[in-house]
Amino acid sequence: MSETYRRIVLASRPDGAVSPTNFRIETEALPVPRDNEVLVRNHYLSLDPYMRGRMDDSKSYAASQKIDDTMIGATVGAVVASNNPKFKPGDTVVGMYGWSEYGCSDGAGLMKVDTTHVAESAYLGPVGMPGMTAWYGLNKIIEPKSGETVVVSAASGAVGSVVGQLAKAAGCRAVGIAGGPAKCAYVVDELGFDACIDYKAAADRKALYNALKDATPDGVDGYFENVGGVVMNTVLARLNPFARVAMCGLISGYDDRGAMEPIENPAMFLVARFKMQGFIVSDHLPLWPQGLKELGTLVATGRLKYRETIAEGIAAAPDAFIGLLAGKNFGKQLVKLA
Amino acid sequence: MSETYRRIVLASRPDGAVSPTNFRIETEALPVPRDNEVLVRNHYLSLDPYMRGRMDDSKSYAASQKIDDTMIGATVGAVVASNNPKFKPGDTVVGMYGWSEYGCSDGAGLMKVDTTHVAESAYLGPVGMPGMTAWYGLNKIIEPKSGETVVVSAASGAVGSVVGQLAKAAGCRAVGIAGGPAKCAYVVDELGFDACIDYKAAADRKALYNALKDATPDGVDGYFENVGGVVMNTVLARLNPFARVAMCGLISGYDDRGAMEPIENPAMFLVARFKMQGFIVSDHLPLWPQGLKELGTLVATGRLKYRETIAEGIAAAPDAFIGLLAGKNFGKQLVKLA
Repeated sequence: MSETYRRIVLASRPDGAVSPTNFRIETEALPVPRDNEVLVRNHYLSLDPYMRGRMDDSKSYAASQKIDDTMIGATVGAVVASNNPKFKPGDTVVGMYGWSEYGCSDGAGLMKVDTTHVAESAYLGPVGMPGMTAWYGLNKIIEPKSGETVVVSAASGAVGSVVGQLAKAAGCRAVGIAGGPAKCAYVVDELGFDACIDYKAAADRKALYNALKDATPDGVDGYFENVGGVVMNTVLARLNPFARVAMCGLISGYDDRGAMEPIENPAMFLVARFKMQGFIVSDHLPLWPQGLKELGTLVATGRLKYRETIAEGIAAAPDAFIGLLAGKNFGKQLVKLA
Repeated sequence: MSETYRRIVLASRPDGAVSPTNFRIETEALPVPRDNEVLVRNHYLSLDPYMRGRMDDSKSYAASQKIDDTMIGATVGAVVASNNPKFKPGDTVVGMYGWSEYGCSDGAGLMKVDTTHVAESAYLGPVGMPGMTAWYGLNKIIEPKSGETVVVSAASGAVGSVVGQLAKAAGCRAVGIAGGPAKCAYVVDELGFDACIDYKAAADRKALYNALKDATPDGVDGYFENVGGVVMNTVLARLNPFARVAMCGLISGYDDRGAMEPIENPAMFLVARFKMQGFIVSDHLPLWPQGLKELGTLVATGRLKYRETIAEGIAAAPDAFIGLLAGKNFGKQLVKLA
C-alpha cells in the first residue's frame, strides 16, 4: 500500500465545452480508517454523462458539485482495511468514491458484490447504474409489449445497449441509432438488435428520417432518448399513436446549453397522443434490488452482452470523459485505477 | 317545420388563418326520415378548436374532412319526427350533426339527455366533450393530489374552467392563465380559482414568468395545456419535480403551423423529471359515462359553473369560429340554431 494516492478535483467550471483545465490532479496522504471506517482501493472508475451536469453551477438534474471537491463518480474496488464489521479485507465493493484511487468512509452506501459469475467492472455498467437506467426507462416508462418497435439512441453505449437487448427479450423489434459503421455493426451483429442506423452516415435530415423509416416499417412505439437534438426530433416524427418516450439524457446538448435543440413540433403530442417522461434512476432506489438481480442473472448467463472502453490510470480520466461527451467511447467508459 | 334547412360546408382549406371564404352556406330540402330514422331540429351547435385541424388536409389529431361536406360538430336539439323506437318527438338529444339546422340519421351515436336540472346547452359544454376533456386530462394524466398546484391555460374557456374547478374540488391550488382582466376576474371571482394571470398584461416574457411565480409560490405540479407557445414554455420552467403535463391543445399555433412554437428546453424533462402526455378524449369513450355522471351532478347542484358565448343563427357560425381561434369568446362558444 502506498503512502499517498491521487484524486481529481473540479478546478473550474466549463464555459461551454469541457476542457482538461477544468480538472486538477492532487496527491493526498492515504487516510487511516478510524472506528467503523473502511478503506477501499478502487479498481475501476465509471465515467457517465450525468457528471457534466454536476460541473455546472446552474440548476441541473443533479446537484452542482463544489470547486476543489473530488469529481463525483461510481467506483468498484477491494477493501484493504476495515474497522467496520460489515466489511473485511478482500471484499469487492461498489461505492461512490469519485475520481480517486482510494476511498475511505463509514461504509454507508457501499455495496458488497459477488464476482463469481460477473466481472467487477460490470457492476459499473450493465449490473450497475447504467443497467438500472435502461431497466427502469424501458420497463417503467416505455412498458414494451411484444410485437412493438422500440428505438434507442446511443445504442452501443452503456445504457442503450441494455435497452435494446431487454427490448428484444420482451419480444420487440429493437432498432438502435449510433455513430459510425463499427458501432452499428456491433449493435446488430453482437447485441442482436434488428437494425441500427448510423446517424453520421445520413447526408441530411431527410436521409436520416428515411433510414429510420426503413428500419421501423410499423412506426415507433417506444423511444429511449439518450442524445436529443436532430436525432430526437427525427424519431418523434415516426411515433405511433400512444407511443411512450423515456427521456434519459440529451448528451448532444450538454456542452453547450445555448445550443440545446428544442422539441420542434409539440403538435406531435396531439397527433400521436404520446407520453414523454424524464427520469433519473436514483429517484427509484426501491426498484434497484429487483432490477439488479435480473440484470446480474442475464449477464452471468451470457444473455446480456456488454462492451467496455477502458482508459488506463486516473490521470487519463479527464480526456476519457471529454471523449465520452463526444461519443468517442465504444460501450461503457471506464478508467482502470489498479 | 320549414321545407328547407341550412347547413355550412367546407368550401376550401385555409391557407394559414381561417377566413369566412373557407365556408359556404347551403340550403337543402328537409329530409323525410325513412325506416328506423330520426329527424332532429338542432337547437345549439358547439364550436371547438379541434375543428381547425379537420379543415387541413395534413395529418392532424383528427381526420381531415372533405371539401363540400357539412362542417363537423356536436349539436343538441329536439327530435321532431322518428321512425326509430328508441326516440320520440320532443326528446332532447345530443349528436354530431355538424353545422346544420337539422340532422337526420338512424340514431347511431345519438344520446338522449335529461334537461330537468341541466340546461340542454350544457351537454355541449361542462357535461359534454369539453367537460370530459377536462375530467380526463386532470384525473387520468395530472392525477392531482390535495395540496398540489395545478395551472391551466385558457382558464375561462369551456375546458379550462372545468379543469380549475375540479382541481379546487380535489384540494389543489388552482391557477388560471387567461387573456384580459374580465376573463381573469371571472376565473377568480366566479369560478373560485386561487389566482389568474392575464397573459396579455405581461409586458414581456420575464413579466409573465414573474406573475406566474407570484401565483405559484410552491411551483407547479400539474399543468393542463390548451394554448402552447410562450405561455407553455413559461409554465414548463416552473414545474416541480415529478410534475405532470396534460397536453390537450395548442390553439395559439393552429392557424399557422409554421409558427407553432417549439418546446424550448427539453432539458427540463430531466431537471424536473416531468411527464408530458398528449390525449384526445374520444380515445377514451369507456370512461365517458362515469365522467359525465360526475360532471352532470356537479352542474345540476350548482357546484360546477360555466359561461357561454352564444352566436345567433347558423350564418354566424364562421365568424364565431374565427373568433374562437383568436380567443374572442368568453366561456363555451355556441351557435343558437333555434
